[in-house]
Amino acid sequence: MFTTQLCRHLERWSARNVTRFIKHDRNICTSMSVFSNKTKQIELTRNRYPDLKKGPYADLTGQDVDYFSNLLPGRVLTDASDLEGSNTDWLGTCRGSSQLLLRPKTTDEVSKILEYCNGRKLAVVPQGGNTGLVGGSVPVFDEIIISTQLMNQIISLDDISGTLECQAGCVLAALDSYVSDSNLTMPLDLGAKGSCHIGGNLSTNAGGVRLLRYGSLHGSVLGLEAVLASGEIIDCKSTLRKDNTGYDLKQLFIGSEGTLGIITAVSILCPQKPKSVSVAFLGCESFETVLSIFKQAKHSLGEILLAFEFMDSASMDTVRDNLNLTSPVSEFPFYVLIETGGSDGKHDEEKLTAFLENQMSSGLISDGTVATESTKIANIWGLRERMAEGLMVDGYNYKYDVSLPLSKFYQLVDDMRDRVGGLATRVVGYGHVGDGNLHLNVTSPQYDEELMSLIEPFIYDWVSKYKGSISAEHGLGFKKRNFIYHSKSKSAVDLMKRMKLLMDPNGILNPYKLLPDN
Amino acid sequence: MFTTQLCRHLERWSARNVTRFIKHDRNICTSMSVFSNKTKQIELTRNRYPDLKKGPYADLTGQDVDYFSNLLPGRVLTDASDLEGSNTDWLGTCRGSSQLLLRPKTTDEVSKILEYCNGRKLAVVPQGGNTGLVGGSVPVFDEIIISTQLMNQIISLDDISGTLECQAGCVLAALDSYVSDSNLTMPLDLGAKGSCHIGGNLSTNAGGVRLLRYGSLHGSVLGLEAVLASGEIIDCKSTLRKDNTGYDLKQLFIGSEGTLGIITAVSILCPQKPKSVSVAFLGCESFETVLSIFKQAKHSLGEILLAFEFMDSASMDTVRDNLNLTSPVSEFPFYVLIETGGSDGKHDEEKLTAFLENQMSSGLISDGTVATESTKIANIWGLRERMAEGLMVDGYNYKYDVSLPLSKFYQLVDDMRDRVGGLATRVVGYGHVGDGNLHLNVTSPQYDEELMSLIEPFIYDWVSKYKGSISAEHGLGFKKRNFIYHSKSKSAVDLMKRMKLLMDPNGILNPYKLLPDN
Repeated sequence: MFTTQLCRHLERWSARNVTRFIKHDRNICTSMSVFSNKTKQIELTRNRYPDLKKGPYADLTGQDVDYFSNLLPGRVLTDASDLEGSNTDWLGTCRGSSQLLLRPKTTDEVSKILEYCNGRKLAVVPQGGNTGLVGGSVPVFDEIIISTQLMNQIISLDDISGTLECQAGCVLAALDSYVSDSNLTMPLDLGAKGSCHIGGNLSTNAGGVRLLRYGSLHGSVLGLEAVLASGEIIDCKSTLRKDNTGYDLKQLFIGSEGTLGIITAVSILCPQKPKSVSVAFLGCESFETVLSIFKQAKHSLGEILLAFEFMDSASMDTVRDNLNLTSPVSEFPFYVLIETGGSDGKHDEEKLTAFLENQMSSGLISDGTVATESTKIANIWGLRERMAEGLMVDGYNYKYDVSLPLSKFYQLVDDMRDRVGGLATRVVGYGHVGDGNLHLNVTSPQYDEELMSLIEPFIYDWVSKYKGSISAEHGLGFKKRNFIYHSKSKSAVDLMKRMKLLMDPNGILNPYKLLPDN
Repeated sequence: MFTTQLCRHLERWSARNVTRFIKHDRNICTSMSVFSNKTKQIELTRNRYPDLKKGPYADLTGQDVDYFSNLLPGRVLTDASDLEGSNTDWLGTCRGSSQLLLRPKTTDEVSKILEYCNGRKLAVVPQGGNTGLVGGSVPVFDEIIISTQLMNQIISLDDISGTLECQAGCVLAALDSYVSDSNLTMPLDLGAKGSCHIGGNLSTNAGGVRLLRYGSLHGSVLGLEAVLASGEIIDCKSTLRKDNTGYDLKQLFIGSEGTLGIITAVSILCPQKPKSVSVAFLGCESFETVLSIFKQAKHSLGEILLAFEFMDSASMDTVRDNLNLTSPVSEFPFYVLIETGGSDGKHDEEKLTAFLENQMSSGLISDGTVATESTKIANIWGLRERMAEGLMVDGYNYKYDVSLPLSKFYQLVDDMRDRVGGLATRVVGYGHVGDGNLHLNVTSPQYDEELMSLIEPFIYDWVSKYKGSISAEHGLGFKKRNFIYHSKSKSAVDLMKRMKLLMDPNGILNPYKLLPDN
């Protein structure tokens, strides 16, 4: 199938089998059990940030618990050990002290919960799969956790229009599997897909590896239902591709991290599932080469380009050292992962082959592997998608997720490495080049105040200087709320605050998140 | 290139040349001069709707005009004949009586204008290319017209990321031509492209014929700048593909029809320009056939499907009778226009050929034409895109733009035809099948109250019954504002009203539009 020079290379590359991958959903991976044992050692957020005071909220009483137990029989958790996992974020860097977790099944129940909490001024934190990376989905103090775990019903799927309707607590991978039977695919894909909830995806405007092809959720979400702090249900459940009747309210809830309302149902447009998928994993001598290959890929692969990811050698070391993964190519300073998929396997293969031949003949790539078989594809993706898991093994993970102009993209990693020197275990850069989105991570054995002071606010100033975004896809959550002015103007933040006040006058919805402290 | 049976058909079809098309921008077409002469005969909106009273706004004084003349020297129009075109909508169905038109060049000037108007409680209407179809871009009473005509500067184009930054008054076709030099294309395309402004496109969340492929503006707009009623400038001018730092305020302005703020600058993601474009125009025996072909097209053409449009025989009669256009295929009850485009002309052609062969061998299509040459493509598109212009020649045009589930899509046209009987000159249906978006039009020699009472609210009730949208892409503007409840819940409209009050407390921005009367 492949021609001449390329063909020989591909044979060689294919022979190097990628071994010892396990399913790349980070929440079922082995490192999680290690993590669970560590939970109790994680410092409480209120202790780590002693200057932060609890807002003007009521304390939970036995009467409150009785009310909820009556409303949600058998779906109210109050035992500290049952709440442990939900009080702690996935990274193990934030730990709240909530005493109550509620598991509603219906929008009406969510409405009744919020109406009660609003009347009592009880603060709440909505929680989906709890896979967030900025401390947005866990309590800071004792906020009541409202979990969407039991709101997991698929409502409908129209296989002509490709519209899926479901409750907010459906797990992304389960949805993808469901629509796959109708030759459709979910328009987003991310490492946490085996645990994250679609409602959480919308609340955080999750990006992931397919954004390059399918665009953001602001485009692919057709409708949603949300409950305001008052308990009022906002019904924007359109399943129509086009609907220009009034303000597009659903957009407000996408990316507002549960601070304006709790999303309870979703309708989303699912594109046709590619008939064939190929993945190329390439070694590159420099970041300039990565960019050249990207420009060529956009031009030559066009509409079949599903993903364009990169990782540096420090990233490869991380998954090799900490997860025992093996690279399918020899040592390079940078690696590129290209995924293609379209409606005609033969055409897609021809395009990819021609593209790779061109890159080889122009000397941009000298080693790489191509996979078309699903296990091998999953193995290659594992190198990229299990990075977050690999980094956690080092101990504490200082995690940054920035957008930058491509011309400045990797310089930040070099500058950070120079700055933190030997204080860090490692400084790694990887991410979605195709979206201008860099994941910069620093690790150390445990949380280190001195190291932290070298990283922040340096990184935010750096990103701001080059007009980047201090949070490309992870959101602001708890950890980054006070750095919002590095990416947004005062007038914009002021308007956000006024909208928050309008929609949640008592501020009970996910306090201490997204908006900066006063 | 084409094979066997299909090849013979294509030769035959190609021989039937499409003649006498002119450039399909409706604002430079010959019928416009006819229209211009009619302007003075169009009834003033305030007379046609005598029950509607002017809001609590100030009347314009000489002192006000002096202020603006000083702010915008040489860019203030007060002469009634100069304002005639801007007081009247493109359809000739709404006519305001503004005495002042302002032509700012900068965001700062827009800010100063609004600050002044807000202080004086002078109502304003923002106006782009004035190509709207629901009376949203013209004054209802004497609102001051703020035109974006002179805000037509391109700010930057990044040809790696594909991000274009420009002022709000740039004409869509001019932008498309500009980015075309960098092998990019604008992510939207519509009949009014030669006149409509990108700011107006965003304000109305314009859809058009490429939405099927490139998605809505909520996905492709990366940033914008808007001025609130108070004069405050909201800077959301990101050029980044990903930015999750706070509420996505720009989404509020997309589709809010100038009632929350005036958009002054835009940054938008431009996809790669297809290397080859083909158009197939096919005759169909029934609407069921249209749907079958659509389902197959999604499956077989997948990522290269740019547009899937349909028109009924009454639509074809309209452009034939009123614009002297000629159909390239013989008489059919329905016609389908399919546009494809991708990164490899040979692959695209193979896909289209295979698809058409399949449709022919399964008996779904028996006549059609395929064009790859730009003039012929433009001619075929003219049949579809000059429909609005053709309908106007009949006299008065009752224009509806609805989303419906595909199963009910065409039944509305049949039902409407039965209902209005001989009172109408014609009842036609055409539109974007691929988006579930039907354009239903009724015409009569002049405005007819009896005919109108047969159409409305019947059409809105019908659409509401099947959970459609009463305005898929045209917006609500002046004409449809009071029918919003047919597509939106009371809780949603209440929240919209509260947001309007928050952002424009004096209600000076485009009053009598989008939101229902109290």
